[in-house]
Amino acid sequence: MPQPTSDCLTARHAGVRAALAANTLDALVVVHLPNVRYLTGFAGSTATVVLTAAEIIFITDGRYLTEVAADIAPNCPGFRLVKVDPTYDATLARVLVESGVSRVGFEAAYLTVKRFDWLSMTLAASVAGRAAPVLVPAERLIEAARIRKDATECDIFRRAGALLDAVAADVLASVHAGIRECDLAADIDHKLRRGGFEKPSFDTIVASGPHAAMPHARPDSRVLQAGDLVVLDFGGVYDGYCVDLTRTVSIGPPDLEARRLYAAVSEAHEAAGRAARPGAPVSDVDEAARAVLERHGLGAAFSHATGHGLGLEIHEEPRVGPRRTDIPGVPPAGRDDALEPGIVFTIEPGAYVPGVGGVRIEDDVLVTGAGVEWLTHVPRELRVV
Amino acid sequence: MPQPTSDCLTARHAGVRAALAANTLDALVVVHLPNVRYLTGFAGSTATVVLTAAEIIFITDGRYLTEVAADIAPNCPGFRLVKVDPTYDATLARVLVESGVSRVGFEAAYLTVKRFDWLSMTLAASVAGRAAPVLVPAERLIEAARIRKDATECDIFRRAGALLDAVAADVLASVHAGIRECDLAADIDHKLRRGGFEKPSFDTIVASGPHAAMPHARPDSRVLQAGDLVVLDFGGVYDGYCVDLTRTVSIGPPDLEARRLYAAVSEAHEAAGRAARPGAPVSDVDEAARAVLERHGLGAAFSHATGHGLGLEIHEEPRVGPRRTDIPGVPPAGRDDALEPGIVFTIEPGAYVPGVGGVRIEDDVLVTGAGVEWLTHVPRELRVV
Repeated sequence: MPQPTSDCLTARHAGVRAALAANTLDALVVVHLPNVRYLTGFAGSTATVVLTAAEIIFITDGRYLTEVAADIAPNCPGFRLVKVDPTYDATLARVLVESGVSRVGFEAAYLTVKRFDWLSMTLAASVAGRAAPVLVPAERLIEAARIRKDATECDIFRRAGALLDAVAADVLASVHAGIRECDLAADIDHKLRRGGFEKPSFDTIVASGPHAAMPHARPDSRVLQAGDLVVLDFGGVYDGYCVDLTRTVSIGPPDLEARRLYAAVSEAHEAAGRAARPGAPVSDVDEAARAVLERHGLGAAFSHATGHGLGLEIHEEPRVGPRRTDIPGVPPAGRDDALEPGIVFTIEPGAYVPGVGGVRIEDDVLVTGAGVEWLTHVPRELRVV
Repeated sequence: MPQPTSDCLTARHAGVRAALAANTLDALVVVHLPNVRYLTGFAGSTATVVLTAAEIIFITDGRYLTEVAADIAPNCPGFRLVKVDPTYDATLARVLVESGVSRVGFEAAYLTVKRFDWLSMTLAASVAGRAAPVLVPAERLIEAARIRKDATECDIFRRAGALLDAVAADVLASVHAGIRECDLAADIDHKLRRGGFEKPSFDTIVASGPHAAMPHARPDSRVLQAGDLVVLDFGGVYDGYCVDLTRTVSIGPPDLEARRLYAAVSEAHEAAGRAARPGAPVSDVDEAARAVLERHGLGAAFSHATGHGLGLEIHEEPRVGPRRTDIPGVPPAGRDDALEPGIVFTIEPGAYVPGVGGVRIEDDVLVTGAGVEWLTHVPRELRVV
């Protein structure tokens, strides 16, 4: 797998170090794997990183030492590899004490209470006669940087979008009456893997007939049959990055209500795409789609947000939903921020009507200096099979 | 998907309530989804549960309300459904205050510091003039019960093992020189899905030639070729439960060293199976396999534990590894405990020799009153293709 270049990682580290300085932190402990990957390129399943002003200290176990030394260390400025001995957190505590750092940020949204309690106790006990490192809850220090994709990431997204277009064409050509939802989902996942993706980026949705009225239906043994609308929502992971696409097909000729639903969602999709431009609040995109569906009497049928950010995780910032600031415990951060070049997100309005079925149409876009670049290009007209 | 019966859930709740009482807790907040599923049967992606002496309070959002009311509530004694309003944690805090509980356990190994801090602050602020509920770190209250599978779970495991046997036979018949590791992995995952599994239970491993010397290799574009040993490690999720199997095949006739490796691992696998019986320490199983490999001069080549527990998670207790009690921060719990009827785990010794390759043989067993019942039955002789 291609690794981020040294220049690319230098810029990422500089961005996070600026956030550390702004929060008067000497170091940041990184345990969330997508954040570890963003800072280093590491794609394995276990590692803990400490970013200081001068170093990136990489703690991992015997399974990954050879790979990290060969593939990660050469491109990563300030890299220091530390082998786990005897546990991750004991090693982390030792590294922090030896580094002489005082205020150490940690990812409060990911570190568990158990690990925090153990680390705090161990740090306090391990420094005789001088001040122990103090753990300080930190949030979004890396996530805030990850919102705007750099050139390396935009390249990956363009290639991933083209691959997903090809898989989707193959999938749409293969849908037919008589197949079970779960078997079609298995076939879609196989096409994703054979089509160049590392794996599906989430559990594939095949929701037919009445199931299509549930936005998050899980595929089961229901057989696709004439008169069904079928929502197909799938995506893949490519070089670590997630793309995501939805098309709705009709098994046999759609009735009047199905055509009406499809036309309304299609119009909402177009309106959202037009509203997405640099400088506009993210919530404008949602409002544009929602206004169309409300005008068609489908406001209540659109029961989720218009989209979500994409990146090393399938759901990341920004949330492309309604403006909302009144929820206790949920900061508005990342919700009503303005769109900026480099932000990648989905546009996926839908309408779900119990007894009738549902429609969702989803594509991925990259915000540019002038508007958006569409990353996926599968025809958006209702496909009848 | 079949739901656990009311009797089954009543027994599970009683077990956890006994642990609550032993820890003088009035309630337990459950956020870890496999634990939620164990207590309720719920298979969705988001829910928070509060177990009290009399009730099981189920907090979920609009996506799941209909499904939970129809499928989960009827079988679940003491069930009360609460809709999220406006967020999960605000709802949880309100439920705790209204319930009048004092000492509330939470899963310290899963709750994040961010959620804990917000909940603590909110609980303290929400009760005027009387004592607020206090959050108390708890560990393994549900996991300890999950180690011994009940009759419902044993039935699922038997069916899952038979399905995996059938998929494995199909997989082994399809391995051939000339296919890329990543394509074979995609084919295996497709066979799992088409063979009746919900999804793979972990990222499938296809490790050929030099890659087979790495126990956790990720499939890449390497092409299988004559002279390779190929480690195939895969499994599926069935009714929520994970099974796991490994076979090693030879592309073309194996050389002397490959045959020697295979024979040693096969002997270690048999020895581990014989050592597994009720009452024996879990670590006996590991020691039996390790002694064989050491006798063959392969002690250093066996770089992982002999196995792991299976259940609603692919890795759960017990860890079937060497006896060890000297690691700071790692309690020996679940390591050196005795085997008991109902425990399900893998037996998977391996040997990995850089430059030569690797061998692993893995099956799943259920501890019975007298020894073990093998859940997987694929022939264990070296298959040459």
